[in-house]
Amino acid sequence: MEITSLQNAAIKNIVKLAKSKERKEQQLFVIEGARELSLALAGGYILDSVYVCTPLFAKSKYPDVVESIDPNKIVPISPSVFEKIAYRENSDGIVAVAKPKPHRLADIKLSENPFVIILESVEKPGNLGAILRTADAAAVDAVIVCDPQTDLYNPNVIRSGVGTLFTVQTAVCTSSEAMEWLLQNKITSYAAELQAAEFYQNVDFTRPSAIVMGTEAEGLTDFWLQNVKKRIKIPMKGKIDSLNVSVSTAILTFEAMRQRGF
Amino acid sequence: MEITSLQNAAIKNIVKLAKSKERKEQQLFVIEGARELSLALAGGYILDSVYVCTPLFAKSKYPDVVESIDPNKIVPISPSVFEKIAYRENSDGIVAVAKPKPHRLADIKLSENPFVIILESVEKPGNLGAILRTADAAAVDAVIVCDPQTDLYNPNVIRSGVGTLFTVQTAVCTSSEAMEWLLQNKITSYAAELQAAEFYQNVDFTRPSAIVMGTEAEGLTDFWLQNVKKRIKIPMKGKIDSLNVSVSTAILTFEAMRQRGF
Repeated sequence: MEITSLQNAAIKNIVKLAKSKERKEQQLFVIEGARELSLALAGGYILDSVYVCTPLFAKSKYPDVVESIDPNKIVPISPSVFEKIAYRENSDGIVAVAKPKPHRLADIKLSENPFVIILESVEKPGNLGAILRTADAAAVDAVIVCDPQTDLYNPNVIRSGVGTLFTVQTAVCTSSEAMEWLLQNKITSYAAELQAAEFYQNVDFTRPSAIVMGTEAEGLTDFWLQNVKKRIKIPMKGKIDSLNVSVSTAILTFEAMRQRGF
Repeated sequence: MEITSLQNAAIKNIVKLAKSKERKEQQLFVIEGARELSLALAGGYILDSVYVCTPLFAKSKYPDVVESIDPNKIVPISPSVFEKIAYRENSDGIVAVAKPKPHRLADIKLSENPFVIILESVEKPGNLGAILRTADAAAVDAVIVCDPQTDLYNPNVIRSGVGTLFTVQTAVCTSSEAMEWLLQNKITSYAAELQAAEFYQNVDFTRPSAIVMGTEAEGLTDFWLQNVKKRIKIPMKGKIDSLNVSVSTAILTFEAMRQRGF
């Protein structure tokens, strides 16, 4: 039975889940887009329900995604209902409600020679998404988000990360928990900042390493600056004194991968 | 005489200038923020008028910017008027109207061993701004924007680029004009794409080089793929097959700078 009413309780709830507080209370979040949904399924996420607007989904580049979904969970919706719940432009007619994962540091599985990205107090969901996308492309071991000011399941994290939240090992914890974990795992930590003595290109990233990135506005707190092994910086040869944090993270991460032979 | 009326003609015109069509017709654009304005002044931009909301501007980190502005061009405005014309959050109380520059390819001054970024049909102002910011940091010779789908003076280009539009040599032209210019200047061109044979880290960027970047949705057109010297790609080791274009541009640009010893 197709949902055609904008007043339908399930539809109104999807709109509510745009808010962090609701996501936390209900332990549910929204995945929009067939590509993102297929990554969530590949990542083992459990779906609560899936809403499909058939005329739009017929044009999706990822039509196969519905094949692996329990048909009892699929609810057809009308175009006007889809328009109400869609968050993005040019969306491809599918929206799912899913259960978040715990993102515990203890669950992270490391490779023999790990490379980890640590983000302190990241605040812009778009930056977090872009960093997850870079982390996926570079196949880093994990992204550790310390004391975040945004939640992982913010729709903009999923959108700007094109669903890589579901493919990259991600943990949320405090900065001191992350530092302890790095020490336990014998991972050398490098803090990116503007005043640092050492240029990143002279650092040896071939052994177990973590880069620690602060917020754009404030940089890293003293906790990280004092506890890391070394402070590093990217040469700035122009008129401005900082880069976008997702850009800096990509430059450091791909230099590490280059040194490791990808 | 402080402007307090939201109906003031000059104020209404600033709001109009958010539209590309108006910017083109009037040959004027808007600069918001003292930091951005100081970069525009350093870049030799000519100001038409400058609107200052004193209580907000008193907290600016760049108060000196007004010292180099003709006092006759400075117009005080009330907080409610500022709120109407401000585009950003946490803006610091200053908005200027300025004249665009021509951005001609022929005006670009190249160093002895140039490195150039070419963007085909860039559509998202935020990406263009982020790339200009990277271009400034890496001190590239120029950013050439071919057949753009956004205009350089879009407020989001200025905002996301934190004013580096004013510090980086930038030209707008057709793709064939850019290709001809590259050949004339003996600059080797490298097209970034997903299917390319050669990995970027194996390319020698130490001689005069240009990287050519396509749109995120469509990549580069055949014109560029067929006319460049070589096609290059960034290793993608994860589940997704592309990076944000501003991230890819930064990875390639900083690898070139690393090879050149910054």
